[in-house]
Amino acid sequence: MTQSYKKLEHIFKNIGMISDIGAILDWDANVHMPEKSADSRSELFAYLSGLSHSLLSSKEIIELLQEANLDAASLNAWEKANLREMQYSYDHVVAVPEDLSQAIARKSVTCEMQWREARKNKDYKIVKPYIAEVFNLVKQKAQAKADYFKTTPYEALLDGYDKGSKAADIERIFSTLQQFLVPFTNDVIAKQGEVPTANFAMSAELQKTIGFEYAKRMGLNFDKARIDVSTHPFCGGTPDDLRITTRYDEQDFTSGLFGILHEAGHGLYEQNLPLEWRHQPVGNARSLAIHESQSLFVEMQIAKSMAFCEALCREFINHIKPDQLWKKVNFVEKSCIRVEADEVTYPLHIMLRFELEQAIIAGDVTADNLPDAWNEGFKKLFGFYPADDSQGCLQDIHWYMGSIGYFPCYAFGAMNAAQLMHTMKKTIDVKHCISNDQLHKITQWSADNIHSKGSFFETDDLMITATQEKLNEQYFIRYLKDKYI
Amino acid sequence: MTQSYKKLEHIFKNIGMISDIGAILDWDANVHMPEKSADSRSELFAYLSGLSHSLLSSKEIIELLQEANLDAASLNAWEKANLREMQYSYDHVVAVPEDLSQAIARKSVTCEMQWREARKNKDYKIVKPYIAEVFNLVKQKAQAKADYFKTTPYEALLDGYDKGSKAADIERIFSTLQQFLVPFTNDVIAKQGEVPTANFAMSAELQKTIGFEYAKRMGLNFDKARIDVSTHPFCGGTPDDLRITTRYDEQDFTSGLFGILHEAGHGLYEQNLPLEWRHQPVGNARSLAIHESQSLFVEMQIAKSMAFCEALCREFINHIKPDQLWKKVNFVEKSCIRVEADEVTYPLHIMLRFELEQAIIAGDVTADNLPDAWNEGFKKLFGFYPADDSQGCLQDIHWYMGSIGYFPCYAFGAMNAAQLMHTMKKTIDVKHCISNDQLHKITQWSADNIHSKGSFFETDDLMITATQEKLNEQYFIRYLKDKYI
Repeated sequence: MTQSYKKLEHIFKNIGMISDIGAILDWDANVHMPEKSADSRSELFAYLSGLSHSLLSSKEIIELLQEANLDAASLNAWEKANLREMQYSYDHVVAVPEDLSQAIARKSVTCEMQWREARKNKDYKIVKPYIAEVFNLVKQKAQAKADYFKTTPYEALLDGYDKGSKAADIERIFSTLQQFLVPFTNDVIAKQGEVPTANFAMSAELQKTIGFEYAKRMGLNFDKARIDVSTHPFCGGTPDDLRITTRYDEQDFTSGLFGILHEAGHGLYEQNLPLEWRHQPVGNARSLAIHESQSLFVEMQIAKSMAFCEALCREFINHIKPDQLWKKVNFVEKSCIRVEADEVTYPLHIMLRFELEQAIIAGDVTADNLPDAWNEGFKKLFGFYPADDSQGCLQDIHWYMGSIGYFPCYAFGAMNAAQLMHTMKKTIDVKHCISNDQLHKITQWSADNIHSKGSFFETDDLMITATQEKLNEQYFIRYLKDKYI
Repeated sequence: MTQSYKKLEHIFKNIGMISDIGAILDWDANVHMPEKSADSRSELFAYLSGLSHSLLSSKEIIELLQEANLDAASLNAWEKANLREMQYSYDHVVAVPEDLSQAIARKSVTCEMQWREARKNKDYKIVKPYIAEVFNLVKQKAQAKADYFKTTPYEALLDGYDKGSKAADIERIFSTLQQFLVPFTNDVIAKQGEVPTANFAMSAELQKTIGFEYAKRMGLNFDKARIDVSTHPFCGGTPDDLRITTRYDEQDFTSGLFGILHEAGHGLYEQNLPLEWRHQPVGNARSLAIHESQSLFVEMQIAKSMAFCEALCREFINHIKPDQLWKKVNFVEKSCIRVEADEVTYPLHIMLRFELEQAIIAGDVTADNLPDAWNEGFKKLFGFYPADDSQGCLQDIHWYMGSIGYFPCYAFGAMNAAQLMHTMKKTIDVKHCISNDQLHKITQWSADNIHSKGSFFETDDLMITATQEKLNEQYFIRYLKDKYI
């Protein structure tokens, strides 16, 4: 093993710890921090991010990477994969001039604040000049990355969020999916009837108890995890100190309870990452899309299955009939808000964003015509216009904080999850496990095939190793057909 | 202003932010962190402390300090004071060889863990070999600091916790105080009668509500602060994001409620530090002793006064008579545990530790004879032996985590507080303010005379500026006499 590689491991361990520190501070900021302390917290985040950036773009690291790559033959397979991931992190940092990175960071903070106002007031004009600046800067960033990686600007952005992600693949998959989903959605809605009217009230405490219980049965280690409340549910913290959050609606337990299970899916991934590679790039989760596949696997493939609804009603919620619960949590609706969408219409929301993102980077959509472009695109997919911009182009924070190229990974999570379930069923009687309190066997499969691999494989290879083929949208389509028709 | 000085401000701002980050993580570790996540948290703390250490002991900083000191004439008074404090931080870090610092950090962690076992099992033998190592290392540290600062080893340790603190001064003050306190304690106990038997039960919620209300009336800004629960109450976080903790006993509200007010005293100090010097050494609280003076000022001088007990009972606790409450919270008792001691016997606990600490550093007390030395010393002051070592030399964490020289500042807090009150009363009708809901006027005096000064003055000068003389134990003696006899 080369000296240079060992030095890199040391530096990346520090970067990993900075990331852990940031994760705890971020959880705190979302769960406990007094609102007026936000400015001082931003300063701390900026310091940590600058620290990480300076470690990652130092002269020392360039030389170490060069030396380690020259001597890569002496590394074992995990070390080689680690070096590959180090190089990826380094490349994406140095590809963008530092003053441009800083400008984006600064302008995004302001733009995000204005976005909150604009959304609250349903008035896009408030944020328009700010998002114009952000679009302008992110286009420069995309170009800088395109030059560095010798690819197209939008592809370079995609790669920064989901390594190896290709616009052409996404386009092909989305095109097939769209052809299927638009008529399928209409069929499902025509067939499903009314939303169940059972009493879905439940105390927050009981929602938490049940969520906790099932997360534990799935194998989540609560000796190193906790569940709290935040406005936007997330799974934060670190693999050694996991922080799940949800929000409770005491009139309707389904969003809080299934929210915990969704986040528990993320949490199981984090807790089962390879311990011996903690704080190294290869020890991290493969990607956002694979992360989302694990949360959606638990939420959609397991918890919202009929077998799970039966088990849940039998053990904890006797007054509701399983098929009512199933229908409630799998009810399909054409709505304007992505984060409230069901799994059938969800990909359509992402397709709209994917199309617009490409147009923004190409310069065809600008701050001036964004609301119109959004509304027209939405109409094409859903058949009606959003009531106002808060239901339209103001609903998501991502672009306003400078994240363009992020959305596709959300849709890929659901498709990966369906494909993983298809394979898992070949060796595990999933329904039997759900009905007979053997959820840990399901998690064990995910741990063996996905979680414990960390970032050893690239995304396609991970899916090929786990399922014998790379992502294939047909599994998702088949899953939806089986479930809803 | 010199370039070098400006560069130092930049470096110390980063050190200040690292300290803020550590403070939030520390609060989280004490309030929310799952127990089994402690190892990973220790790693993060070690990283932050190493980062701070490396910034503080870099070659760059030596040169910058030299240059800035040469050109100090060009600095204004606050900048000069800031430079002085920078030099102090630097000196205390570089005085100790890095491998020794690291050895102490490592051994202390192990020793502290063994101490928890030993205390739980009331068995000093468990921790004896570990504390022997820690004593040995801390003696080396004391000698290294003594060589660097050209002073005695114990004095060098004292100075590291409370800048400018002199063993001879402490000895003189403690000697006077001891002569007064030993007979005085007996007099008070003889005279006070039985502990009140009123019903002190109160829900945790109400304790928090009342504590919150009074802290707010004193001027604590809860837009940037919160109150939570922890095993050991403390005031943590940062001036911009303050985190007070307490613990509630629903059978006896006094410890929880007055605990909040004690920590609120610390919090007011932090929140009123000079904003324009945030993250600079001169913008920090003067010292631990002055910090403790502010918490004890609020707790003992204000909240446990008869006027406050009257106001509290009148507004919130009608079923208890003010004089009963007063007697309950000012009840004097000879007990073994420092943290549970009243203000009359408290200094005796500190004197015991002060005497033992000097003997440990001199080599007269070792791991072998520590329990005996403790018990004999305790008997001399209190007239009886502790029941076991958990009531004796195992009660405090400090030495087991390598902190020797820390204890005196606890006693100096109470004396400073009494002296400040004496001066305050010359211009403010404190009793009237307490009785007529004008607590903010009291805080304003403290803010003007102590809080807003940060570390501009050294301790003696701060007291001279605020009270026209340096610390004089006679004010504390007079206060005790007035209050108890």
